[in-house]
Amino acid sequence: MNFISATGFTDDLPDLEISIEKAVSDDDFIKKICTPLFGGGKRLRPILFLLCARAGKNYSKEKALPLATALELIHTASLVHDDILDGANKRRGVETLNSKYSAQIAVLVGDYLFAKAFQLVSENNYGDEISLALSKLVKNLCIGEIMQDRALFVVPTLSEYYSRINLKTAFFLSTCCRLGGIVAKLEKSDVENLANYGTSLGLAFQIVDDLLDFFGEEKVTGKALGGDLKSGVITLPVIRALQAGKNFTTLKNIITQDKISDSDVSTAIKIISESDAVEYCKNRAASHIDCAKLDLPPVIENSVKLSLEKISDFVINRNR
Amino acid sequence: MNFISATGFTDDLPDLEISIEKAVSDDDFIKKICTPLFGGGKRLRPILFLLCARAGKNYSKEKALPLATALELIHTASLVHDDILDGANKRRGVETLNSKYSAQIAVLVGDYLFAKAFQLVSENNYGDEISLALSKLVKNLCIGEIMQDRALFVVPTLSEYYSRINLKTAFFLSTCCRLGGIVAKLEKSDVENLANYGTSLGLAFQIVDDLLDFFGEEKVTGKALGGDLKSGVITLPVIRALQAGKNFTTLKNIITQDKISDSDVSTAIKIISESDAVEYCKNRAASHIDCAKLDLPPVIENSVKLSLEKISDFVINRNR
Repeated sequence: MNFISATGFTDDLPDLEISIEKAVSDDDFIKKICTPLFGGGKRLRPILFLLCARAGKNYSKEKALPLATALELIHTASLVHDDILDGANKRRGVETLNSKYSAQIAVLVGDYLFAKAFQLVSENNYGDEISLALSKLVKNLCIGEIMQDRALFVVPTLSEYYSRINLKTAFFLSTCCRLGGIVAKLEKSDVENLANYGTSLGLAFQIVDDLLDFFGEEKVTGKALGGDLKSGVITLPVIRALQAGKNFTTLKNIITQDKISDSDVSTAIKIISESDAVEYCKNRAASHIDCAKLDLPPVIENSVKLSLEKISDFVINRNR
Repeated sequence: MNFISATGFTDDLPDLEISIEKAVSDDDFIKKICTPLFGGGKRLRPILFLLCARAGKNYSKEKALPLATALELIHTASLVHDDILDGANKRRGVETLNSKYSAQIAVLVGDYLFAKAFQLVSENNYGDEISLALSKLVKNLCIGEIMQDRALFVVPTLSEYYSRINLKTAFFLSTCCRLGGIVAKLEKSDVENLANYGTSLGLAFQIVDDLLDFFGEEKVTGKALGGDLKSGVITLPVIRALQAGKNFTTLKNIITQDKISDSDVSTAIKIISESDAVEYCKNRAASHIDCAKLDLPPVIENSVKLSLEKISDFVINRNR
């Protein structure tokens, strides 16, 4: 089960893949280097956009696809740059650019993908409102990451945690939904409700991600457990375990070290699982999903509404 | 003497500085980290744009400044990312972000500046034509750098050298001039002529830059001699010395090594200066400047024309 099958909606997806492939074919080397970056992605962002673009009566695939492609390009660019930051070797099951080529190439290819996304938007005449939304999206991704980078190995308050995951994740999903609503020519208030659905979905998505970092199956997620912790990113399960759990001194000592070993990770996982942090995080994620569903405006097409509900259910039940 | 005094045009520049400062004040940390990046820049790109924007009859500073700012932001973003690629410690006289903070911060701040540039353009409603030109500009910068990165320590043909400097430099200056012409509402053919002026100016600019890398005064340029050579970037003075000079085997052996020492650089400089490469490069730069001047359309305001001519003269006579 993945996002694509979760939606029950597959109509535009083969064309989306073709459009992505075409977008990164400016040059043979670019094509060779970029194409593998897009394998194995969940396509959550373009799917959200495409679904919301179908929320009105006058859906046009030709009009929607370039923007859907641009959203996936921006997401992939941010992953490419993230992997430099994290020194990651694998992403979506393939070797990262910084590992296979060099950090240089990874910086440049990320920049190229960002630029290409903006090119798609302007050459398809989406207009300044949509360009502006995309540039704010990229800007917020950066501010979210900078915020995270500045506070490594420091325990954030709940409010700081939420600010960060909002900038890093929720704002992106929200923008996808908002842009879909705009393309679908919905009323302003309905567009805002779709955007709110995206925000709540994004908060839940990130909280589940943060849980999977401790309790996922490595084979399924494709990532080693405790990766965030090791790189100094302190997330909700830890924040909660520190507030509510026993042994919080041990946990605090582990997470504020500069160098965290595998056995430290195991100890941290044990302390977190003995606290109520997992339940707490799941409850929070579930509440955000409840909010997300409530925000779905009644005016949208029923099949779209059903798919968006399915996505929100999938977000909290996913294992990768 | 610098670009600003070379133009004899200073009207918009204090406002440009204010606009740049304001653009990077989204957040206290961003402001602190970004403001020093803009000290000591030549402002060549926004100056070219602003001059060309004054080429018509209906110049509006308020309309022109955000785009001028966006151009300087894009240029600075590309420098920030370049410095990661080169592992550079100093730029524009101040410590680079990768040196002062981390490569992480440098990647993110570069991304932020790119995004902010696109935000300025879309929130000031410049429209899709101008957004498209900017995204192509960033894309070409990346492709030019990727091209360069792939061919380190390899002697390019003259045509490969020109492709690279066109993507890396000339296309940028050309875009500044083109956008100025568009904002000035010139006729299409006049806009194209301004763009051609920018291309020729950019080619000359880069050739002079490549000469300064070997024959500049380190105190004036702020860079150590032979920096390109050491990082494997083979430029026109070398290409010519290999074709025409004596001792080309010694030179070829030096430049295709992975590790080039200071004494190798001195030997290379000696071989280049004993060949006709310096004269050859100067002649080429001068011809591009001749072309640049010929391309200036007669229709533009006389004071603008004069400033653009002064800039082109300055480009070949500059020492930094």
